[in-house]
Order: sequence, then structure tokens, then C-alpha cells
Amino acid sequence: MKSKFIDYISNYVPLKEDEIQAIYSLIEIKTYKKGHLLLKEGMISHVSYFNLKGCVRLFYSINSEEKTTFFYTENKFITSLRSFIERKPSDHYLECIEDCTLLLIPYEVEKKLLKTFPKLESFARMILEQELGNYQEMLSSYIISSPEQRYLNLLKKDAELLQRVPLFQLASYIGVKAESLSRIRNRITKNP
Amino acid sequence: MKSKFIDYISNYVPLKEDEIQAIYSLIEIKTYKKGHLLLKEGMISHVSYFNLKGCVRLFYSINSEEKTTFFYTENKFITSLRSFIERKPSDHYLECIEDCTLLLIPYEVEKKLLKTFPKLESFARMILEQELGNYQEMLSSYIISSPEQRYLNLLKKDAELLQRVPLFQLASYIGVKAESLSRIRNRITKNP
Repeated sequence: MKSKFIDYISNYVPLKEDEIQAIYSLIEIKTYKKGHLLLKEGMISHVSYFNLKGCVRLFYSINSEEKTTFFYTENKFITSLRSFIERKPSDHYLECIEDCTLLLIPYEVEKKLLKTFPKLESFARMILEQELGNYQEMLSSYIISSPEQRYLNLLKKDAELLQRVPLFQLASYIGVKAESLSRIRNRITKNP
Repeated sequence: MKSKFIDYISNYVPLKEDEIQAIYSLIEIKTYKKGHLLLKEGMISHVSYFNLKGCVRLFYSINSEEKTTFFYTENKFITSLRSFIERKPSDHYLECIEDCTLLLIPYEVEKKLLKTFPKLESFARMILEQELGNYQEMLSSYIISSPEQRYLNLLKKDAELLQRVPLFQLASYIGVKAESLSRIRNRITKNP
């Protein structure tokens, strides 16, 4: 499975054999059962994950209500950046909502990799540019679109996610109650 | 003014004199009048800006209505990343809402700087990490907070912005009509 990560990096920067071996020796892979919490509110995030298999959701607990704000599927980095880079307690949770296989990059390992292999700085910069571009679009879509439009966008861009995620978490992500999402779905099914 | 940019970079990575001179020779500074459009819908973004002075807003034009989704003040990079890195037409506008002094980093110059000075890859990576952390928080706040809470957050985090930005643009940014923002403001003034 580690080779999937090497393949992913190689799409951005070419790696030599000794670099690949060094990366292999520093990272590890773990499996987690559905329901496992990778990060809890109040904990400092010490690990950045790369998702090899499964789905992880980010949620906030507000007045005992869970508010889901993000889903991470395969080939995505899962990093609670504010907590990870500033070494401060997280204000949210990360939960495996399927059985997951994740590659672990602890904080110190990330620092070491970036220092030892400057080309990984380019890789990190390119990944971050892409991700920030995604977030810029997502933030705008929250400000300019209705929940129904956001659902339609999701249907267009990531229809698979809709099959993998429970209705109430999806509703929260779109910014409506579960009943409203059911109504939106019914309306779209009738007038596609 | 270019030295402000060098100072900014030096907070992240130390620069040698020849590096500073090379950066000086590649970047330029321009001033723009209030109302100038730096980017229009349908144009490809060829330039990344660093804001030395002034305020720039990002807005969408939807059914002839302007929807403001972001404000960039001093010491922020202004980059329409999706358009800039993928060389595809922008879906939004960038407008100077004050007289602005901006440092220009054209696409090819950015590529050249990153290639010539690998330490700038680290700088870019760190800036992008911070920005992505900000966006992760902002996106979550749009999903989990009410417009009133978002206004209060803005008051806490960036009170100066509230003085610099017209009410109707601020209202759009918070996700309400101008009249609703006036009501929110009145309520807060009466019950601070």
C-alpha cells in the first residue's frame, strides 16, 4: 500500500530509489475501524494522514449536536492544519465513517522529510495550492449557492460520496436539516 | 516598498543579499485606483499579487447581482488559484475597493523564482499551509455559525475591516441582505 503513496508523489515530482526507500522507512500504515476517532476536540493534532482507503469526516460538536463540515475520501491528505502547524488544541473531531487504511505522517517526520528532500517542498506546495483552490471554490459556493444548488454540485462533482455518507451527515455538510435534504432529493428525482 | 515584501519573506526563510537583489529584479509594484478590476470573469489570472496597501474584494456576478465572498487587506497574497495554476478562465472578479499598492508576481516569474531559489518553495509551502488553515476554519464557520455569529467573529478577529468595507459588500460576505446586517448591528449595539 505504501507504493500507492509513492505513485501519488511521483505524479508531481520524480523520486529516486534511495528517496523512495527513505520515505518507506519513515512512514507507516494503520487500519482503523469504522467509528474510530482520529482526533478529538481539545487534542493537538500530531499526525497528518494520507487516505489510502475509506472515508473520514470532520465534525464539530456544538451544544451536543454534531455538525459535519468535510469528508475526506481516497488520495486526500487529512490534516487539521491549524492544530498541526500551530501545535494548539483542535476545535473539531475527525472520525472514520468507514473502515479506513491510512498512511501516517507524524509532525516530526513531516519536518524531517521536508528538510531531507527539498523536492518534497515542491510536492507539498503543489498539493496545498490545489487544496487551497478547492477551498476557495467551496467557500464561495457556501456564500453564493442555495443548499439545493450545493447538493446538485455535489451530485455533479462527487456523486460517489452521496452513496457513502449517511443522510444526516450529508445534510449537515450541505447546511440543512435531514428532512430538508430529503425534500430536496425528492424534488430533484421528480424534476431531474 | 519592495523591502516590505522582502521583510515578509524573511520572517519565514532567511534571504541572502544576492537572493534579495534577484527578487527585486523580477517583481514590480503598481498602484491602482479604487474601482479598478484586477481580474474579470472569463479572464485567465496571469498574476499573483501581494497586497502592500489597500483592500481588494473577490466577487461573483450572479444574475447581475454581485456576491462578495472575500476581502484581502495588507500583507496578504491575492491569487485566484484555480485560474492561476490551471490556466483556465476565472469565474469571479477581483476589485480594488480602495486605492491599492500591489506587488505583482506574474505566473512565469513565480515559476522562475521557485526554480531558482528552492527556499522559496518552503516559504510558499508555509504561507499556503497558513492560508489553507484559515480557509478550513472559515468554511467550517459558514457551515456551523449563524450570520450574527459570523459578524461577531469578524468583529473580534478583524474589526478594522468592518470600518473599511461598504455595508452591502459586508452583508453579502456574511451571507445576508444589507437590511438584515443593519438589524444585526442594531441588536449588537443595544445588547453588546
